[in-house]
Amino acid sequence: MVRLNEVRSGEVAIDLPERTDAELYFIGRIHTPWTDRLTCPRQGRADGPTCRIEMFAPWDKGLDSITEFERLEVLYWLHESRRDLALQSPRSDGQARGVFSLRTPVRPNPIGTSIVQLLKVEGPMLFVRGLDCLDGTPLIDLKPDRSRFAPLAPAQAGDFQVGDP
Amino acid sequence: MVRLNEVRSGEVAIDLPERTDAELYFIGRIHTPWTDRLTCPRQGRADGPTCRIEMFAPWDKGLDSITEFERLEVLYWLHESRRDLALQSPRSDGQARGVFSLRTPVRPNPIGTSIVQLLKVEGPMLFVRGLDCLDGTPLIDLKPDRSRFAPLAPAQAGDFQVGDP
Repeated sequence: MVRLNEVRSGEVAIDLPERTDAELYFIGRIHTPWTDRLTCPRQGRADGPTCRIEMFAPWDKGLDSITEFERLEVLYWLHESRRDLALQSPRSDGQARGVFSLRTPVRPNPIGTSIVQLLKVEGPMLFVRGLDCLDGTPLIDLKPDRSRFAPLAPAQAGDFQVGDP
Repeated sequence: MVRLNEVRSGEVAIDLPERTDAELYFIGRIHTPWTDRLTCPRQGRADGPTCRIEMFAPWDKGLDSITEFERLEVLYWLHESRRDLALQSPRSDGQARGVFSLRTPVRPNPIGTSIVQLLKVEGPMLFVRGLDCLDGTPLIDLKPDRSRFAPLAPAQAGDFQVGDP
């Protein structure tokens, strides 16, 4: 069962600071078939349903050249998640583990990341496969998948730096 | 040459909204050999220098079980980047393209993502390879790399849903 808002046996909540440190813009909205957290996939699949990523103005100008990439990395805001559970019990069995060893949506900064396949672009709307989030999820960022991207900017000293073997 | 704060020929800046939509906590700090943007690698490499990810209290509790994973996804805040360039010219040659077709640090929400190899953990400090960010970069999130992670929580209806072929 998906977590709605409960704290389960074995879980540990922390007190969150009153002050936050940085601010985000919601630059678009994601449209998926899942209107309830009880039906969302735990993890997106490459052959999953087609979903749509809508980019809001004025950021839609930044979509130029996006069709060069068939795989994109998507960052989104998990807007229904609580943020304070440092230890979590995904199986609700009293066994808890650290949030950073899970890909749970319940995180101090509830940002989800997915790799999607880009099917087509129509104006500010991208048609993709591979998402797992709720319908209406706010979009934060879109980048070419790292494995398909080579920097265009000239290399710098750090690019040639290796560590001890 | 790395961008410091200039707008280059062909680039397009947009007016950012006055209101933001969500807030982040800086949950740690990343220590790297690069103290200047002019020396940072454009992209991290698997055989790069060892860097350290320091997790602040109280979030360090969430590191439990992290050593089960040798590859982690790291999200960080690119704190020196401007945020308003929708079209950018990485080669400074007058040719500009959309921000979302680049992995540039200059983005509406300046969040960087890297896949790192976890070497060891000492208390709240993780030793990793594969980063490319500036020394002192604020940490936002840490997750098991998706390719090494299978959800522990029970599957839901969406996990079995496929789209048209």
